Amino acid sequence: MTAKLGIVAGGGELPTHVAAACKKAGREVFIVGLDGQADPDTLDADVWIRLGEAGRGLELLREANVEELTFVGPVKRPSLRQLRPDARTARFLAKLGAAALGDNSLLSAVASELEREGFRVIAPESVLDDLLAVEGQYGAHAPDEMALGDVARGIRVARALGALDIGQAVIVQQGHVLGVEAAEGTDRLIERCAGLRLDGEGGVLVKIAKPGQERRIDLPTIGTATVAAAAAAGLRGIAVEAGGALVVDPDRLAAAADEAGLFVIAIAVES
Amino acid sequence: MTAKLGIVAGGGELPTHVAAACKKAGREVFIVGLDGQADPDTLDADVWIRLGEAGRGLELLREANVEELTFVGPVKRPSLRQLRPDARTARFLAKLGAAALGDNSLLSAVASELEREGFRVIAPESVLDDLLAVEGQYGAHAPDEMALGDVARGIRVARALGALDIGQAVIVQQGHVLGVEAAEGTDRLIERCAGLRLDGEGGVLVKIAKPGQERRIDLPTIGTATVAAAAAAGLRGIAVEAGGALVVDPDRLAAAADEAGLFVIAIAVES
Repeated sequence: MTAKLGIVAGGGELPTHVAAACKKAGREVFIVGLDGQADPDTLDADVWIRLGEAGRGLELLREANVEELTFVGPVKRPSLRQLRPDARTARFLAKLGAAALGDNSLLSAVASELEREGFRVIAPESVLDDLLAVEGQYGAHAPDEMALGDVARGIRVARALGALDIGQAVIVQQGHVLGVEAAEGTDRLIERCAGLRLDGEGGVLVKIAKPGQERRIDLPTIGTATVAAAAAAGLRGIAVEAGGALVVDPDRLAAAADEAGLFVIAIAVES
Repeated sequence: MTAKLGIVAGGGELPTHVAAACKKAGREVFIVGLDGQADPDTLDADVWIRLGEAGRGLELLREANVEELTFVGPVKRPSLRQLRPDARTARFLAKLGAAALGDNSLLSAVASELEREGFRVIAPESVLDDLLAVEGQYGAHAPDEMALGDVARGIRVARALGALDIGQAVIVQQGHVLGVEAAEGTDRLIERCAGLRLDGEGGVLVKIAKPGQERRIDLPTIGTATVAAAAAAGLRGIAVEAGGALVVDPDRLAAAADEAGLFVIAIAVES
């Protein structure tokens, strides 16, 4: 029997989706909801902890006999005041020092620290087979030539940003970069670009993993909510990296894209 | 006697400032206000044209006996519908083709086209001596070590963005990139980052000219309004590139920075 899986749950619908898939496959889960990150209305967590409560979190996971852990769903960076670190968290942050400033280095350090504590950290897509984006098109709509040009430009920009550990998402319309994601997150990027939209053919959203990113923890994720937000902002489509993004429930995503008239594609990106 | 200077006026206070300096120096000016870009409440323009009226603009400049032209103040990219190009503008855009999609190539093309039409295009700082940022500190406040670290990170990020012809401005706080400018412009970047601010020492705004930018037309500009916006957003200071940014009325800017408790520095950036 596979050991109980610890699910550390951030935002979005993915944590619930992964938990359901585990239960369906007969694997027990122990869900740790992150306060202020996961949605208490939809996530049925076993315990809730603040991000700063690493000590209590480790204790709870051990008490629940968890050996394998996965991080699911985006986590917004807290301010130090919101973090209110417990002793264990403070020791970790002190050890990290300046490395805590970059998202990549922070997440890699979290993963290493948990492994030092005796946990195995696995990627959510190793729990849920069809989670990782596969090359090709989701749904019936395909990008035209202009959209493919926008996607190509978006990939170049997203990779340059990612190399600087800034953000994962870019919106490009007719060759023009409307917006670039940093700390505000993809939802607010999409909202903002709705107001910057030019006439004519709509833009595209490109989400690409950062080079050097801790892929077990923080892959870009898209789901039906992303499709709805993109459609509301007048975008024509979404492109992610094949093998470098999580797609929550591909069938529902394809259906949502078809209904909204958007294309969703996963493309191979050379590294 | 120096020939009459044509001032094509975009947004902000700089066009009025340049016009006043010319008049003070005894040089006649002919001010072309750009509809929807320049502020009709503060700019005393001789004529107003839409961005799409290149034909009419050229005619008006010739009738006014203008031989030398300068572009002053930021110009927001219009949609094609807002542009409603006249025949001359449409011919220019058709000639440009895909090159019109990048800001850099567009502005370079505008400058070349005007020179082909017989005008000299000069940079605003060649009209107003003290306009170009000089290396050093404006006002009494100096950046501390953390702020200098944020400035250094901001410069790296801004140069990478600039190389992709995206934007000129970045806000960094405690090593973390809060926001990156694309089509929304610096004011909205500053506003947005106010809401993303972490506790503790505030962030810095870094504005750097894009490599390959048409420097005669589109240098980053800061003035007292920039200082006020930065202060309102909880930033600690502003850094621009020495020789690569315009500083509107340095004495007033220094006084505003002192009053707001902000540092403003221009630093040498290796190319």
